[in-house]
Amino acid sequence: MYILEDERIDQLYADDIQIIQSANVFSFSLDAVLLANFPAIPKRGKIVDLCAGNGAVGLFVSRKTNAQIYQIELQERLADMAKRSIQLNHLEEQMTMYTMDLKDSLSKIKGDSVDLLLCNPPYFKTSETNIKNPNPYLALARHEIETNLDEVIQVSSKLLKTNGRLAMVHRPDRFLDILESMKRYRIAPKRIQFVYPKLGKEANILLVEGIKDGKTDGFKVAPPLITYNDQGNYNPETRRMLYGE
Amino acid sequence: MYILEDERIDQLYADDIQIIQSANVFSFSLDAVLLANFPAIPKRGKIVDLCAGNGAVGLFVSRKTNAQIYQIELQERLADMAKRSIQLNHLEEQMTMYTMDLKDSLSKIKGDSVDLLLCNPPYFKTSETNIKNPNPYLALARHEIETNLDEVIQVSSKLLKTNGRLAMVHRPDRFLDILESMKRYRIAPKRIQFVYPKLGKEANILLVEGIKDGKTDGFKVAPPLITYNDQGNYNPETRRMLYGE
Repeated sequence: MYILEDERIDQLYADDIQIIQSANVFSFSLDAVLLANFPAIPKRGKIVDLCAGNGAVGLFVSRKTNAQIYQIELQERLADMAKRSIQLNHLEEQMTMYTMDLKDSLSKIKGDSVDLLLCNPPYFKTSETNIKNPNPYLALARHEIETNLDEVIQVSSKLLKTNGRLAMVHRPDRFLDILESMKRYRIAPKRIQFVYPKLGKEANILLVEGIKDGKTDGFKVAPPLITYNDQGNYNPETRRMLYGE
Repeated sequence: MYILEDERIDQLYADDIQIIQSANVFSFSLDAVLLANFPAIPKRGKIVDLCAGNGAVGLFVSRKTNAQIYQIELQERLADMAKRSIQLNHLEEQMTMYTMDLKDSLSKIKGDSVDLLLCNPPYFKTSETNIKNPNPYLALARHEIETNLDEVIQVSSKLLKTNGRLAMVHRPDRFLDILESMKRYRIAPKRIQFVYPKLGKEANILLVEGIKDGKTDGFKVAPPLITYNDQGNYNPETRRMLYGE
């Protein structure tokens, strides 16, 4: 295992995971930590981390389960960081990173076979703004250049078994699009959680969980997550997810 | 103006409004106060309060606008309380209560004419439980016996002018149904707000605002409302709405 010159090894204390990052290429954000803490994690079976980036979400959930975890990332540079993080944490038996377009997922992972699909996809419509991130790694990770929300949910649905769950983190302004695509691909939304940066501020992050071929009743809105307190420090719940305190 | 034996006059201090209530028949709840405080209130034009009950929502917004306010309530006993509250507050010039089925709204109010439609409809599906409220007034006010969510939104859409707004309070578990009916009747959801009884608890009230024939982009999740603090007392924001403090 090696690390490149612009890389560093960060620690997520809450889950006792080390992760290779690079300010020039990709570092995980709070969103990945929130997603890893959102759904109930099945103890065994098959978990897929779609749009896996440097592998943060899959790595974070690995400590909570004996399930096999498959990660899919298009960008070779990011996938390579994830592969080395898997080695670094001695998770080669449990985790596999596939460097490929998510459209090809079914060539590696059987359809109708996945228990939990986690996804932290690109958030921004390419039409929304002409200003994309000038960093090409971040541009692909954050903007819908190589995939889009509808496609991500379509592929998720194909991979999930009946009653398998999709858990996704996204921006609240895409909520209606998410619900529409979930409906189109037979995923019943069951639970959402809004993350507010502070009390008195609009939600800036949305977490949503749905069940393939599930019933549409029993929809729940989970307790609010308020990231920072009035002094601008992390609230206890955020600290717990990041530092395990 | 008279009040009946089982009635009392309550005061909403925040809006300096007196309202005739009855524990046996109907009293407004926090939901009505939340709804009256949720949307921007147009300064003039036409406001409709659908499923008006004893008139609380329309009465509460009356102090903030010169718009004409039309209230629609099916139950004669409740509508009669509202009519007397209108007199009690000397609002006869501004407010009109129509005692009728909302399906007949267009016989009194021109279609495509309303700027803001406020609605605190019955929350519970009749199929959801066989146990309806044994009080017949509350049964009709709370259960979808005489109308239902889809019909309420259909009538709202007919009444609203283009770019007119619908603001509704409901239960979070009906959120997906609300979005579906809004789509069906060309009302674009624009803003939602979740009300949580306490930090750490699931949302128990949903406020939603949509625009007739509006664009579907720019969807926002308003800051969270947390009703009570950890000691079980109203938080400052709730107190402000109730007591004007």
